[in-house]
Amino acid sequence: MEKLLKHGGNIYELIEKYGFEKEKIIDFSSNVNVFFDFEKIKNMIISSIENIFFYPDSQYKKTREKIAEKFSVSYKNVILGNGSIELIYLIPKALKLKKSIIFIPTFSEYERSIKLNGGKILFLKTKEEDNFEIRIDEILKYKSFFDSIFLCNPNNPTGFYIEKEKIIEILKKNRDEIFLIDEAFIDFTEKESLVSEIKKYKNLLILRTFTKIFPIPGLRIGYLIGDKNLTKIISKYMYPWNINSLAENIAQKLIDFELKEIKKRIKEEKEYIYRNLKILQGVKVFNGEANFFLIKIERDINFKFFIEKLKLKGILVRDCSNIKGLGRNFIRICVRKRNENEKFLNELKCLLYQQ
Amino acid sequence: MEKLLKHGGNIYELIEKYGFEKEKIIDFSSNVNVFFDFEKIKNMIISSIENIFFYPDSQYKKTREKIAEKFSVSYKNVILGNGSIELIYLIPKALKLKKSIIFIPTFSEYERSIKLNGGKILFLKTKEEDNFEIRIDEILKYKSFFDSIFLCNPNNPTGFYIEKEKIIEILKKNRDEIFLIDEAFIDFTEKESLVSEIKKYKNLLILRTFTKIFPIPGLRIGYLIGDKNLTKIISKYMYPWNINSLAENIAQKLIDFELKEIKKRIKEEKEYIYRNLKILQGVKVFNGEANFFLIKIERDINFKFFIEKLKLKGILVRDCSNIKGLGRNFIRICVRKRNENEKFLNELKCLLYQQ
Repeated sequence: MEKLLKHGGNIYELIEKYGFEKEKIIDFSSNVNVFFDFEKIKNMIISSIENIFFYPDSQYKKTREKIAEKFSVSYKNVILGNGSIELIYLIPKALKLKKSIIFIPTFSEYERSIKLNGGKILFLKTKEEDNFEIRIDEILKYKSFFDSIFLCNPNNPTGFYIEKEKIIEILKKNRDEIFLIDEAFIDFTEKESLVSEIKKYKNLLILRTFTKIFPIPGLRIGYLIGDKNLTKIISKYMYPWNINSLAENIAQKLIDFELKEIKKRIKEEKEYIYRNLKILQGVKVFNGEANFFLIKIERDINFKFFIEKLKLKGILVRDCSNIKGLGRNFIRICVRKRNENEKFLNELKCLLYQQ
Repeated sequence: MEKLLKHGGNIYELIEKYGFEKEKIIDFSSNVNVFFDFEKIKNMIISSIENIFFYPDSQYKKTREKIAEKFSVSYKNVILGNGSIELIYLIPKALKLKKSIIFIPTFSEYERSIKLNGGKILFLKTKEEDNFEIRIDEILKYKSFFDSIFLCNPNNPTGFYIEKEKIIEILKKNRDEIFLIDEAFIDFTEKESLVSEIKKYKNLLILRTFTKIFPIPGLRIGYLIGDKNLTKIISKYMYPWNINSLAENIAQKLIDFELKEIKKRIKEEKEYIYRNLKILQGVKVFNGEANFFLIKIERDINFKFFIEKLKLKGILVRDCSNIKGLGRNFIRICVRKRNENEKFLNELKCLLYQQ
């Protein structure tokens, strides 16, 4: 537990360092949906609390069936993970991946997972001047190099989304290489999942999570959908009872939850934040498809000092300094509620222009 | 999730197959402590429920510190697992174990974990006529063979306990080989943990869990205590946020819980069950140190039919047929409350003698 990467959502540093109360921190650093009815989720948990006294079903059949039903696949196409992160770490090991392609900047755990299992990585760098567009057809040049590609769609931290058709076009030309498409943030978009394609493409794996659109990062549950041959191999590397009973139970309840209203509210707030950021001199904002914004601070400031000053105001943003493929002075902020977004915008202006 | 081993605690088969309600099943098959105040645990969960909305601390520092404090070690000696089972699967991988010794019969996941990581196993079979006594000094004969030993103490499913001194004697002669001592059931005994020895023996790893003495198998949390060099290596193979926030939070509260009264009650019930079983003709009971009994049915019965008939009465026992190193006709039962134990004893007598 000593060597983990730094991520967003680390409110514990603020609590320990500055003595903040958990509730007083406005956490823009973790991309969790704050528009959900928290009371409703609490009540769901409380009504199923007896489940903690039982081992979960080691096959998780009911939950897998519920997920399978939603996507019109078989439960044998579905594997549950202790957060989708568990599956990210399992796949290179189980499928013995040796040479992977990753477009950067992206979620840093793909790299750590592949390397931990002895795999090599070809990093394809997307460009700031192209709004970090991922040109997936680039991989065709490296056909002999790779056995797998890890793709976050929409991408974290840039928000860039690759249209489904573009991925399918490439899939048609690469039938043997594993395509792991991480759709952690797709529920925030109006885009359609690639799950519908798993029957056609036996090398396609779709990763999804309950942690982002549903605000339960503390409960830990994600899932993988793919061809039965692949899910069977991956299953062999799993240990029993990897999902806790409460996460399993709430997943069954949330899978069919109607997200329309929530999406609308996020969209409104995104527009509000974008409108207010793009007029600021020395602030470059990347308008992606997810529930967060990547922002570059182009003013001549002490960046670390700037992050620290926000923290002192109880505002936690994702310092992107440690994300491979990004230059300096990038932050990522999650879309939160109006009064919180206002507070962030005010503090930002204050720190950038009134020093 | 297709290839998992069969274990106790699988009430879901009964629910699916016979339409039982979860609450109507008396589960003697999972070794969970039923003497705990379930309401107290529920209230602990409810009072900390807000934690589900936050990512857990990826370092789990506070929880590790609490555990460390209890055992007078540093938090760097402590690693948390998503159930101790996660750690069982992590250790052979991280420490690259190649040749392990396992005394059988024992918990079957050690074997699966070692093999999954490409390791070889020397099985040392303990004998029924010796009450499955583990003669740990036997391993000295195989010094050149092994790099590790997996030992469950008290052992599951036999209940056999190896005295601390005997293990230390062997540790003195084997300074390089990894000793993984799984103390999942030690809290049910009056015996002392081997954790106190980790400073002296850099090759000693102690595995413990919150799932047995505390009746929360659905929540998933276990831990490993060992030398800092070993925990550091193992940590490198972990993924972030492997423990859910509720499990983490309740572990902090339960670690110092006074178990005296509970142990007394379990002891009384164990004596009651033992007294009633040992007088039965054709029933051989092994009196171990844990909160369960291994039982051999020596009467000429159709064993599968017998297990099935118990199920039809809503009584689930652990059919030990798939445990390596045990002969036929063994079951394991957990110590439950008096009225439940009575029911089991009556049904047992009924099935064995009144057919």
